[in-house]
Parts: sequence; structure tokens; C-alpha cells
Amino acid sequence: MTVDRNADVVLSCPIPIDRYPHVLLAHGGGGRLMHQLIEQMFVSTFGNPLLDVRHDAAVADLGGTRVAMTTDSYVVQPLFFPGGDIGSLSVNGTVNDLAMAGARPLYLSAGFILEEGLPMETLWRVVRSMQRAAEAAGVQIITGDTKVVDKGKGDGLFINTAGIGLIESPRRIAPDQVRAGDAILLSGDLGRHGIAVMAVREGLEFESAIESDSASVAPLVLALLDAGIEIHCLRDLTRGGLASALNEIAESAGVTMAIDEGLIPVRDDVRGACEILGFDPLYVANEGRFVAFVAPHDAARALAVMTAHTLGADARVIGEVGDVADGPSPAFVVMTSTIGARRVVDMLSGEQLPRIC
Amino acid sequence: MTVDRNADVVLSCPIPIDRYPHVLLAHGGGGRLMHQLIEQMFVSTFGNPLLDVRHDAAVADLGGTRVAMTTDSYVVQPLFFPGGDIGSLSVNGTVNDLAMAGARPLYLSAGFILEEGLPMETLWRVVRSMQRAAEAAGVQIITGDTKVVDKGKGDGLFINTAGIGLIESPRRIAPDQVRAGDAILLSGDLGRHGIAVMAVREGLEFESAIESDSASVAPLVLALLDAGIEIHCLRDLTRGGLASALNEIAESAGVTMAIDEGLIPVRDDVRGACEILGFDPLYVANEGRFVAFVAPHDAARALAVMTAHTLGADARVIGEVGDVADGPSPAFVVMTSTIGARRVVDMLSGEQLPRIC
Repeated sequence: MTVDRNADVVLSCPIPIDRYPHVLLAHGGGGRLMHQLIEQMFVSTFGNPLLDVRHDAAVADLGGTRVAMTTDSYVVQPLFFPGGDIGSLSVNGTVNDLAMAGARPLYLSAGFILEEGLPMETLWRVVRSMQRAAEAAGVQIITGDTKVVDKGKGDGLFINTAGIGLIESPRRIAPDQVRAGDAILLSGDLGRHGIAVMAVREGLEFESAIESDSASVAPLVLALLDAGIEIHCLRDLTRGGLASALNEIAESAGVTMAIDEGLIPVRDDVRGACEILGFDPLYVANEGRFVAFVAPHDAARALAVMTAHTLGADARVIGEVGDVADGPSPAFVVMTSTIGARRVVDMLSGEQLPRIC
Repeated sequence: MTVDRNADVVLSCPIPIDRYPHVLLAHGGGGRLMHQLIEQMFVSTFGNPLLDVRHDAAVADLGGTRVAMTTDSYVVQPLFFPGGDIGSLSVNGTVNDLAMAGARPLYLSAGFILEEGLPMETLWRVVRSMQRAAEAAGVQIITGDTKVVDKGKGDGLFINTAGIGLIESPRRIAPDQVRAGDAILLSGDLGRHGIAVMAVREGLEFESAIESDSASVAPLVLALLDAGIEIHCLRDLTRGGLASALNEIAESAGVTMAIDEGLIPVRDDVRGACEILGFDPLYVANEGRFVAFVAPHDAARALAVMTAHTLGADARVIGEVGDVADGPSPAFVVMTSTIGARRVVDMLSGEQLPRIC
């Protein structure tokens, strides 16, 4: 049936099987274990020049046209939460990944894995929500697939979307373009998506519901590109939050970053919920927020474009990129706290919020 | 939390909820219920000119380049079977869907939904198999995503792949191009994939293992295109088998089809297994077989190209397209049996082989 000899498989496995004999929830949590799995197993095996960029979306040449491609599976629980649902999330998340490559999102695929017994009404609400989100984001869902798994072998509904978009700007937008002196802009307040989902899951009640920030940020990114802003890198702040996104980019670019806690907007109710739940807003997932690394001479203009847009009304410059780091493990992010102390902001270790997207 | 009023959702649902309150396994089985779900819920909601082709892959314009896009989720059980595994299947299946649009497959995305507790060794075997299949098919996996769901909320491993390819031929290859008189060519023997999977699942032993036919058929399709064959439509014979594929195309094109049972190759061991398991080979899934609808003047040349290729060594002309059908529900496929009797070959109703791909 299989020609693999066990010992050969174990020995060749790039993840040490004696240490990690099984997949853990944290392998999907957006932190260090997930990055190890992606780097050591997927990138090293599928390795090709296009994959190696380690970006939200890959950029490929198709008959002379520069095309961005990305994919995400959505396994969020619960399926419906304040401000969104798995359907709108599955459109916005993939659209945002395309936008992070500087692409104009155009077409999506949709793959459904349904669990036998899923109420038809639930599926219909989700499908309707996907179409509304696609219309709002200006993309078309052009191909799809439906699979049904036996009761007890799924969890209601998983959705995969893949997306393709057109890159019109000649400038490459990628982590390795980040330079010392670049301004770090954050497009809005942090933590709402993660807290909205966790609040429903944990049965927490707040005075007013905290709504997810789930939205397509493509129009804001296209506004920056149309204004000719010299953008070096973009990254949306999903699993692992702001802290993990900055660490990933610092590592890829081999630079340091300095950010200022006092400049990072977090709503009071979100901060309160984080305290109750024991989360740090820097690590909580967002679904409509991104950071932009912008050449210093364009920072003020970029901020003006962002704050003039409803999607970036709360945008701030939160810090800047420091000198290229040396040493064996040099990349790091340092934050000055509101009381003036400085601390290293590390990548998320393990799992903070399972099944948040 | 949600603004939907229940009654509104129920009333607007395009699938009658009183008849189908829940998703059934058959909604993913490749037969009539799946087609109803796709047509009535997905196509009518996401409806756009690109989606409406109801083909294996959508064809879109990207900056002046004609690009095919497709997606499939793979939920096959067991994960490993004679002749393949979920990894090679997830590459070949999506590559084949691109080929069916006449595209040269180029790039794939890979989305993994892992169940907590999946042996790392299993994941590694699957990932390695995907890479081998990608190399063999001449495609690159350029972007991916990993999610982990709690133990008991998945089934080991689901994979979604989406693919994009380049369409170089000016001729549109689609169901609506099929014409009366077209020759129907079948690329090889039927039923091996479905039987290979079911034999493992049911613990059946044969004298020699029946191996899945899982393979990328793109090289064979490109050979036909390179030879300048006037291909009107292509369709791979996955869920629902030959019978469902012919019925789908007959329905889309509004034509009849006549096929000859005696010309359809089915291996003796596969036929025997079908009898034991109670299956009709016409409805069993294949993962390396397709039908080609070819202009009559090119039929002999197409057959010569196919049989000269290892992927089409057993290819046959199995029938031809008849006149455009009239009447309210006119499309049908008629088969002349080996003893000369004629019978209507209908689309699969319900579920024959669950989780075959």
C-alpha cells in the first residue's frame, strides 16, 4: 500500500519527530511553532523562488502579467460573531492578503468542507455573507468546490478561499524591501477581531458588543499606491497580531524596529476584555488592520492619505525601523512603554487564541 | 449578534429548507443533489459571467492574459491508498481541472486543515508526496496556509489546492462548444481510483492490489492542443464518474449523446470488485481519466495522439454527440450495451462513494 519505510520517513522529517510526534493546536496559532512548521516543512520541501518570499501572497509572472496569488482556510468558531462571520471573513482575509502584496484583488475561489448535518439555513447565511463581502471588496467568486464529510469528522463548516490579483505598481512590496529609517504606520486600533470572537466563545457580556474589525482594506492600500507613496512592505495583523507581524518582517529584513506603546490605539473596552481574558492586545488577531513600512520622506503624506480614508481614520505612525542588526540572532522589536520602560516584543510562542480565523 | 431574522433566511434560501433542513453526505457526492446545491445556492448567489460557465475551471482575463483558475478540497479517506495518497491527489486533481480548460497548469496554492494529534510523520509523508506530484506535473506550489482544529473537529488532514494556468490556445474549450457529430474520446480504463480507495476502506483483498489511476493528465491535453486538434470540450471523470460527466455536458450543451458499452475499457479485476461492492463502473470516480469532445474530422488524429502517449495508451472513441435535443427536459445520454440493448444513462442520484477525493 505504501512503499515508505517508517524509519526513512522519521529520519527525513524536517520537524524532529521525537520532540513533536503530533501536530499541536499551536502549530496553527500564528506563533513560533507555526513558523517553524511552515519554514522547516513546507518552505524547505516546496522550496522555489516564488514561495521563498514568505509574504502574505506570492507574486508570479503569467504571460508577462504580474499576478499575486494567496490562499487561506477559515476554521473560526463560532461561525457568527459581532461584526462578521466565517463567510465575510473568508472573503476579506484573502482580499487583504492580496492587497498586502500591492495587488488589486480581482478573483476568488471558494472551497467548502461541510459537515453532514449542518443546517442548510446556516450555509445559506454564510454564502449570502460571502457574496455581500465580495461585492463590497470589488472581487468576483469565479470557481468553487463542495465536499461533505461525515457527521463528527468536521466542525460545521470550513471554507478555503484562494485569490488572485493584478500588480500594477512597478515597485516590489515585500519584507526584504524594508530599510533603516522607514516609518511604521498602523492603520487603526488593535484587538477587536480576536476579542469579538473570544467574547462569544467564552460567553462574556460587555456593555456594548465589541465588533470585529473584519473588512477589506484593499481600497486603502490602493489609495496609498495611487498617491505614489513609496511603500516598502505591508502586512496585515491576523494570527499572532502586531507583535508577530513585526517580528516576522524584522527577521526577514534583518533589521530592528522601535515602536512606542503610547502611539498604538487600543479601545478601552478591548483593553478591559484583554485584561479579563489574560491577553496582550499586541498579540491578538485583527482582520481589518495592517502595518505599512514607508520611506521616511513619504511618512507624513502616507499618514494623511490613511487618515482621510474611513478604513484608516485612526491610523498612526507607531515607530521606525532601526539599523540592520548583526549577530547570530539579531532581529528584534523593542517597545517603549507608556511609562518610558523599554522591552523586547517577541513573537508569540505557542497558542494564544485558537481558531480565530 | 446577527441581524438575520430566521424567517427571512428560511424564505430566501434557494434550497427548500423544509425538504433539506440539513446538509447530507450526498450534497458532496457528485450527483444530482450536489448539482442542485451548486446551481441553486452557489451559482445563483455568486452569479457572474465567469462563474456561469460551470466548467472545471473558470477563465478570466488578467491584464490581457487569459488565465484559468480552479479549486478543490480533498477529504479522501483513507489518506493513503494503492497508487496514491491525499497529497498526490490534491496536486493531480487541481492540475487536471486546469488542463480541462485547455490551460497550461503553472502555480498552485496549498491550504492545510490539520486535526490536533495528527502524527507529524503522516503530515510529512503527505507533504513529500505533494512535492513529487508537483514536480511530475511541472507546477510550483507558491503559497499556502496552515490551520489546526481541535481533536475530534476534523479528520486527520484536509487539503485545499487552488491552481492557476495560462491559456495559450485561442479556441474556447467549454461545454457550450460541443456540437452534433463530435466524437467522444475516453482517455483510458474506468473505475480504478474509486475501487482502490473503497477496497482499502472495506478491507477487501484482491490477488493484486488495484491501484488508483491518479495522475496529472496535463501533458496529454497539451499534446492534443499542440497537435492543433479541434477540441470542443474536456472533462475529467472524478466524482460521479463518466455517467455524471456526460450528463452534465449534455445538459449544458443541450445535446444528446450515444455511447457504446463495448468500447469502454474496464479492467476485469475492477469489474469484479464493482460487482462485489455493488457499484456501476460508469459512476465510479477516476483521477487520471477524461473525455474529449473533438470535431469529427479530427477524431482519428486525436485518437492517434492519445494512444501514442503513455497517459492515453488505452484511449478509445466511445461514442458521438447527437442532435440538439428538444423538449422541456431533453438532454440525455443513451448507451448501447454489449448485448445490443439501449438504455438511458442518468446522472448519479445521491451518494455512491463518499469521500473518494
